[in-house]
Amino acid sequence: MHFTSEQRLDDDVLEREFLLGEIPGALWMSGSATAPVPLILLGHPGGLGKMHPRLVARALGTVAEGYAAAAIELPGAGDRPRLAGVDEARADLQRAAKAGEPVSDEIVDRLVLPLVEQAVPEWRATVDALQSLPEIGGPVGIAGGVTAIGVRMAVVEPRIAAALLFAGSYVPRSMFAEARKITIPLHVLLQWDDEGNDRQLALDLFDAFGSEEKTLHANMGGHTGIPRFEGEAGNRFFARHLK
Amino acid sequence: MHFTSEQRLDDDVLEREFLLGEIPGALWMSGSATAPVPLILLGHPGGLGKMHPRLVARALGTVAEGYAAAAIELPGAGDRPRLAGVDEARADLQRAAKAGEPVSDEIVDRLVLPLVEQAVPEWRATVDALQSLPEIGGPVGIAGGVTAIGVRMAVVEPRIAAALLFAGSYVPRSMFAEARKITIPLHVLLQWDDEGNDRQLALDLFDAFGSEEKTLHANMGGHTGIPRFEGEAGNRFFARHLK
Repeated sequence: MHFTSEQRLDDDVLEREFLLGEIPGALWMSGSATAPVPLILLGHPGGLGKMHPRLVARALGTVAEGYAAAAIELPGAGDRPRLAGVDEARADLQRAAKAGEPVSDEIVDRLVLPLVEQAVPEWRATVDALQSLPEIGGPVGIAGGVTAIGVRMAVVEPRIAAALLFAGSYVPRSMFAEARKITIPLHVLLQWDDEGNDRQLALDLFDAFGSEEKTLHANMGGHTGIPRFEGEAGNRFFARHLK
Repeated sequence: MHFTSEQRLDDDVLEREFLLGEIPGALWMSGSATAPVPLILLGHPGGLGKMHPRLVARALGTVAEGYAAAAIELPGAGDRPRLAGVDEARADLQRAAKAGEPVSDEIVDRLVLPLVEQAVPEWRATVDALQSLPEIGGPVGIAGGVTAIGVRMAVVEPRIAAALLFAGSYVPRSMFAEARKITIPLHVLLQWDDEGNDRQLALDLFDAFGSEEKTLHANMGGHTGIPRFEGEAGNRFFARHLK
């Protein structure tokens, strides 16, 4: 990993862009922290450039709570090489959605599984690289992003101590067996009136999670209308488990 | 309403028992508040005497957050005259549960509807009486207790500004039309792994609530295992809506 740029976002927060091999990423941390802080990986739907304003907003909140925040580009997104099969599956999914047809498990598998296969080793390598920095230490959290990546990370990466996941969309049924293996605390968000989300699948997924501490927060407000107070709830969840 | 006893529970909190007509109740408030505080009605399953230690614990938390807390005995509970039909329905329910049979809607109607019919006017009279005290003012909240009573109160009593309800057990399907009429903010708790609770009915009820702001918090821990952090979450809910 090497850092490619550095800028101060406000009086305290430093944004550092990096390359991990060919994968672009960004790290946000306090410029004034005097001891190592826990890391929270910020998930996102892909496209670091397009997502940048929203990621910065989340990162500022995360750093203010006493963590470092980091995000890397998803496989096939932004300027990274396309994943042909995933692009095709996405087109099939959009076709089905437009036609008002149910999205088949087969399409979801083709869309999500290759992404998970490639992204999880990359996220783990990111943890390796960032944990080697003197400014970062302690347990690692995951916040949001592609739920299936969070599920796999929670199972295979022992440094992940807590995960905040979005319930639902497009977690392959074939990954429910993995969901049952999760033991770390989970904080799960569900937008109850998100018509593009399969609510029953979301509830089934929550049910499947093996964790002894798992909490589902369901709210109204549509796909993008997560209430502001859920930000605080997420902070308290991480404070219980990363500090 | 007249007060029958008064005792100081700690350096600050005053517990005052009262009779509203024949109905016993208790009011908890700060002895040092200098301005009127909002009232939160503490629901419970009936039996003020038996419930007293738990009610006091909840009341102390409620008063510490800047409210007055009150509870009255449920119809047919404690030393109040039995409700013959309700007792019979409860016996039928216990028989069904013991035999592993589903509890019929008819039994739930007989168990809950008479309780709601009688309790709601009593709760409203309690609000009348307590709001006339100079120490109490502002919007009123409901916290817990028999969910169907909370549902009816939320619909018919305009002074109720926010309600924390337990999702599920024994809300008659015949009251779902009322649930749809609720418009106040709701904070709904569900113990996901409570085997004595009908989870699907709980989710259906949450879905039915008409409120624009409704949040479901589902947790593990069994019937009585609501996590401690939900206490704080409830406090923040009321702070958003009663202050």
